[in-house]
Amino acid sequence: VTSPQNPPTRPAEKPVGVPVTNRQVLLRARPVGLPRAEDFELVERGLEDLSLGEVRVRARYISLDPAMRGWMNARRSYIRPVEVGGVMRAAAIGQVVLSRHHQFHIGDTVVGMLGVQELGVAPGDQLLKVDPSVAPLPTLLGALGGNGLTAYFGLLDVGCPEPGETVLVSAAAGGVGSVVGQIARIVGCRVVGIAGGASKCRHLIEDLGFDAAIDHKAPKHGDMRRAIEDACPDGVHVYFDNVGGDILDAALGQLAVGARVVICGAISQYNAEGRVAGPSNYLNLMVKRARMEGFLTFDYQDRYAEGAAQLAAWLAAGQLVTREHIVIGIERFHDALMLLFSGDKLGKLALEV
Amino acid sequence: VTSPQNPPTRPAEKPVGVPVTNRQVLLRARPVGLPRAEDFELVERGLEDLSLGEVRVRARYISLDPAMRGWMNARRSYIRPVEVGGVMRAAAIGQVVLSRHHQFHIGDTVVGMLGVQELGVAPGDQLLKVDPSVAPLPTLLGALGGNGLTAYFGLLDVGCPEPGETVLVSAAAGGVGSVVGQIARIVGCRVVGIAGGASKCRHLIEDLGFDAAIDHKAPKHGDMRRAIEDACPDGVHVYFDNVGGDILDAALGQLAVGARVVICGAISQYNAEGRVAGPSNYLNLMVKRARMEGFLTFDYQDRYAEGAAQLAAWLAAGQLVTREHIVIGIERFHDALMLLFSGDKLGKLALEV
Repeated sequence: VTSPQNPPTRPAEKPVGVPVTNRQVLLRARPVGLPRAEDFELVERGLEDLSLGEVRVRARYISLDPAMRGWMNARRSYIRPVEVGGVMRAAAIGQVVLSRHHQFHIGDTVVGMLGVQELGVAPGDQLLKVDPSVAPLPTLLGALGGNGLTAYFGLLDVGCPEPGETVLVSAAAGGVGSVVGQIARIVGCRVVGIAGGASKCRHLIEDLGFDAAIDHKAPKHGDMRRAIEDACPDGVHVYFDNVGGDILDAALGQLAVGARVVICGAISQYNAEGRVAGPSNYLNLMVKRARMEGFLTFDYQDRYAEGAAQLAAWLAAGQLVTREHIVIGIERFHDALMLLFSGDKLGKLALEV
Repeated sequence: VTSPQNPPTRPAEKPVGVPVTNRQVLLRARPVGLPRAEDFELVERGLEDLSLGEVRVRARYISLDPAMRGWMNARRSYIRPVEVGGVMRAAAIGQVVLSRHHQFHIGDTVVGMLGVQELGVAPGDQLLKVDPSVAPLPTLLGALGGNGLTAYFGLLDVGCPEPGETVLVSAAAGGVGSVVGQIARIVGCRVVGIAGGASKCRHLIEDLGFDAAIDHKAPKHGDMRRAIEDACPDGVHVYFDNVGGDILDAALGQLAVGARVVICGAISQYNAEGRVAGPSNYLNLMVKRARMEGFLTFDYQDRYAEGAAQLAAWLAAGQLVTREHIVIGIERFHDALMLLFSGDKLGKLALEV
């Protein structure tokens, strides 16, 4: 029997808070299709010295995001691929344990691209200091962190929703989608979410205040197109897409004149071994004089503070409800990653270290 | 032997300019795939009386446009379908022969949606009076008419090209594409055209002043993607798409950051019997923070005068070069229509009545 005071992987004789080794998840092979456990390897290594300006962070929660699947591929997209043999890239939140940057001190809580490892190192200017009294750490990592900022800038700056318009969002019970829908509700839009399963759909309406929800595993009339038409009688003014594939296609078929389609992700396509399925209904962009536009959150870096402050204010006012699904143990990285693709989780998915 | 003075279809005893019957091309059946000759029927009918506000126009040139293929389908898009048994819809230019609208007089030259017929009738408020001294009638119908306005608003208002940017246009030797490329050149862009065949490509560079041309029937390296990459070393800032399909997909793969993709048409897909091919590379909109946007020229009706005046000024200044491909005889409507899809023509395609 092990107790929290004496966990099996961290012998008690090592001083708490000053680890001397680091467990890391490496990318061992580039996945083909759905990532397999063998594509990753958990290793334990000694620590390297910090360079000037660098900060060492003990990760508490590691973010699991669909974009990680793209980073595993050889092809450069907006960021270089993770190297085979390198630490898997991920965002994380944790506390500073060593700093060679004058703005960071031991004990500071920070968020950054620290990788899937217990002890990440990053230049201080790539870390964001956060206030742990504002919300629990998983919320600071999710709804008030990368996911929330993605929702905030993607919906408001790219989707440009107006009060009274209908906003449709896919993966609506996920880390990004749940915040998108709630911001749209705060803006004064009619909000329709697409999620997989009846319990997620209930959550959207009962907990998050969506106006309607579509279960893509069992759409009304057995038909996504008709289900969207039913739920969006005035057409879709803003569609925030996290999934791609058939759902994107169905949504494109129901656009209102002048609609905006925000391309945030395409989780249904990330494990495709052939070509990505292109949206057959894209010509509706012409018929409806609509636009489809992609964005990357990190283009808004100089406005992160604005977004984070607004999200925190909504959270404090009870207007923003968050859910986190936590998987415990860095050794369960692959299991947790699979939950992203199976959808067997609710809200923001994170790994507790 | 027949002479122009005594054509077989117009007996000499009828007074010239005051026809009493009207030859019309009717849509007989909705085409499946490529339209067949049997899908249309040429009939001769008597004239109906005009209602108040209507104008009768003797068509001189009838415009042939890819959009006509969509109007033949049963499904409503941005405009109601042509009825089976009804006159095929088309734009035309001609002279007023009878008017019950106070702003139109016999002899006025007008452009409007007059249908594929010798004598079209339209409400005066749907006709545009044009000055026949500005350019030959086919040019007034094409580069200074609907095609030119489509190019003008689509490129400038949707594509938003900036001097120094690279503008790529497909169907670049066609009625719309040739004007798009020349406006882009006037704006100060690097202009690359995609067209089918070496002679069209030569025309783009030698006659229209494009910077480069890609023959999609024989692209450099045998690969559209690489051919576009070669011709657009800084990436594509504006892609004006008239064709859809593989060419759209290849262009999406070469976007510059912040690119604008203008969806004007998709002639490669209009005769598809299955689903339209969606662009597999649409996720590059996210990677490149780019947008893809559709438009319809008639949304810009209140700015037609502005566009037409600017196009006429460029033509007068020698900055805009136009080509028209004329097929003579309303009875050759189907033959002419086929040239749109085979591409065996250069510039604006019109039927001389």
